[in-house]
Amino acid sequence: MMHTTIEGKKQQEKETVRIEAFSDGIFCVAITLLAIEIGIEANKNETNEGLMHSLLGKWPICLAYVISFINVLLAWIGHHGLFRNLRNTNTAVMVSNGFLLMLVALVPFPTKTLGLFLQTGAFKAAVIFYTGYFVLISIAFRLLWYAAARKKDLLVHGITPAQIRSINKTENIGLLCNSIIMLAAFIHPWAALILSFIMWVYWILLG
Amino acid sequence: MMHTTIEGKKQQEKETVRIEAFSDGIFCVAITLLAIEIGIEANKNETNEGLMHSLLGKWPICLAYVISFINVLLAWIGHHGLFRNLRNTNTAVMVSNGFLLMLVALVPFPTKTLGLFLQTGAFKAAVIFYTGYFVLISIAFRLLWYAAARKKDLLVHGITPAQIRSINKTENIGLLCNSIIMLAAFIHPWAALILSFIMWVYWILLG
Amino acid sequence: MMHTTIEGKKQQEKETVRIEAFSDGIFCVAITLLAIEIGIEANKNETNEGLMHSLLGKWPICLAYVISFINVLLAWIGHHGLFRNLRNTNTAVMVSNGFLLMLVALVPFPTKTLGLFLQTGAFKAAVIFYTGYFVLISIAFRLLWYAAARKKDLLVHGITPAQIRSINKTENIGLLCNSIIMLAAFIHPWAALILSFIMWVYWILLG
Amino acid sequence: MMHTTIEGKKQQEKETVRIEAFSDGIFCVAITLLAIEIGIEANKNETNEGLMHSLLGKWPICLAYVISFINVLLAWIGHHGLFRNLRNTNTAVMVSNGFLLMLVALVPFPTKTLGLFLQTGAFKAAVIFYTGYFVLISIAFRLLWYAAARKKDLLVHGITPAQIRSINKTENIGLLCNSIIMLAAFIHPWAALILSFIMWVYWILLG
Repeated sequence: MMHTTIEGKKQQEKETVRIEAFSDGIFCVAITLLAIEIGIEANKNETNEGLMHSLLGKWPICLAYVISFINVLLAWIGHHGLFRNLRNTNTAVMVSNGFLLMLVALVPFPTKTLGLFLQTGAFKAAVIFYTGYFVLISIAFRLLWYAAARKKDLLVHGITPAQIRSINKTENIGLLCNSIIMLAAFIHPWAALILSFIMWVYWILLG
Repeated sequence: MMHTTIEGKKQQEKETVRIEAFSDGIFCVAITLLAIEIGIEANKNETNEGLMHSLLGKWPICLAYVISFINVLLAWIGHHGLFRNLRNTNTAVMVSNGFLLMLVALVPFPTKTLGLFLQTGAFKAAVIFYTGYFVLISIAFRLLWYAAARKKDLLVHGITPAQIRSINKTENIGLLCNSIIMLAAFIHPWAALILSFIMWVYWILLG
Repeated sequence: MMHTTIEGKKQQEKETVRIEAFSDGIFCVAITLLAIEIGIEANKNETNEGLMHSLLGKWPICLAYVISFINVLLAWIGHHGLFRNLRNTNTAVMVSNGFLLMLVALVPFPTKTLGLFLQTGAFKAAVIFYTGYFVLISIAFRLLWYAAARKKDLLVHGITPAQIRSINKTENIGLLCNSIIMLAAFIHPWAALILSFIMWVYWILLG
Repeated sequence: MMHTTIEGKKQQEKETVRIEAFSDGIFCVAITLLAIEIGIEANKNETNEGLMHSLLGKWPICLAYVISFINVLLAWIGHHGLFRNLRNTNTAVMVSNGFLLMLVALVPFPTKTLGLFLQTGAFKAAVIFYTGYFVLISIAFRLLWYAAARKKDLLVHGITPAQIRSINKTENIGLLCNSIIMLAAFIHPWAALILSFIMWVYWILLG
């Protein structure tokens, strides 16, 4: 009987490990695929000055790449921090994690949109779409933690109610910050991008 | 002699682990590559309203992405559940697993087809192609389990005939469901997509 | 002193594991990227019959995909079998493994070429390029095994001279088969593709 | 208390493992994605001679691919060698490692630029951009090692000041070499590419 329990427990630990590895893989491929859109058109008659000028003209798509790379990297760190508290999964965790991964894998889409329309009359719409997309990602994180924290037996042994409340707070602040950034995009798109930058610095220094 | 056996056994266990890791990698890259087709064309004179309109017009390709993401994620979970019962591989398992991975890596092709022709006169043909492709994937799963279950020494110790019959049943139901969905596509394409959705809910809640 | 030796040995084992994992990753991404070229052009006025016809017309690129998927999968199995005999690496192994991975990562290029020109007047040139590319891959495998087998301390303990000769033979046969297939392509391109198929069946059943 | 320390230590070791695995994944996907730009345009009326000629005409993009593959592979080996000395991370290591990975994932961009403009009047500008990009990568490596070496408790036990100075030296030489290569590009682009080649041979034989 005890043997069965140990076997079962081992199986479950392996389960979490594999889901984490699969999630890591999706984060990793998604973050690398962000870059493949960035390129220069061939031009047989290009000059040195012309190419330098073309390269400098790529700053909007490069800026969008940098913003998304940082966002996805922070999301990966957050995902990792969240799963560190889990020792088991259930259907609700699997589904909410799947929803999160589906959004992460699609980040290249809002990134391209932001880069392509940064210097057009559609800048505001592009930033609203981009920041709104990361509100969705925050909601997916919130759902994932909600699904995990509801069941005591999914969490690692020795976690205290204070620690759970602390993670609750972190997820709520993340959702709140992303919502404020999206609202700022309605006032002025650059305000939203600068607020994102401030949030990262805060997140990195205090996270 | 006994040492050799233990060595041999360890080698074989490592074998299964590496095939699983490789399969996981293909699932992971394939599921992330689904997203790279989704994008908006650059337009220097775009307005905020125009971009919002263009983004909303992307719903067919996004719907195809969501459907395929869920299908590949469920296939990954199914692959994982199947390999949990294996402790060893042989040529037949390697070949049928290779056939399955070849199909999984090509899922972006039917996905793009579905997304591109959802609003055209070729909607029915696109859905028949898409759903027929997942019938093929079900057949590959069925073959993989057939190859594995034939040989007692490929399966983990302590597996009961009842457990084997249960997995047989799961694979048969999967093939049957996907076949019914494909037949439904001949009647009406939306019927097939709605049946897919019902099957997922059933699969997630009871799987 | 003994402690240092054990430490050093562990470090070296870890080294091989990480190189294998990195190589596996490149095989895995390369094999999945083979698929991303396959797609159908959007056509707002497409009919069901027209789409079915277009999909059937994709058989050359799908055939090229299947051929390359099998080739890369067999190369992965071969790579795995070769590294199973190594317990350590040196510069020559690293460089020849790097050369092999560089070729594997570029397989999508000859694959696309084969698929695009299968039904054109350049079919023969495409098959010569494709089969010649896999001769290069065989040479890289031969070099890798040559670099490994030269140094006794790179190989696992207990490997016999007979086993080493057996792997030598396998690598030589692989190079010979791929060279014959390439020569066959000069006579008739289909002869080369059919010979490839025969070699796979032989390889899978006897490998 | 001691138990907590061991637990904490284990947690931190796992932390480094996961960051290394994630970094490896990004190196692996980035190095494989280098290849997807290389292809030949479809041409229904192509002849065997015409295709051979087109394939030979692809040498600039293939050369750029080979150069970048070697550069990224050496960067991966360097990254691996650096992390072997770490047993723990902090915010500064995470941020500088993230900066390095962001640059690595974007290597396909300078690679494409080099390949596309090798035979145009913009060759010099393309090589300056390419070599300058790898100066940036050297700076990222230097920052990563600076962040790691500042804190004694991030490094593995038993590392000597002489070993730390040796790694300092390696990183400084890397940055110096890449800077010299970039300066050479201002004199003549081929001088820079030949210097790169000499540096690799030195690096591989002495590294």
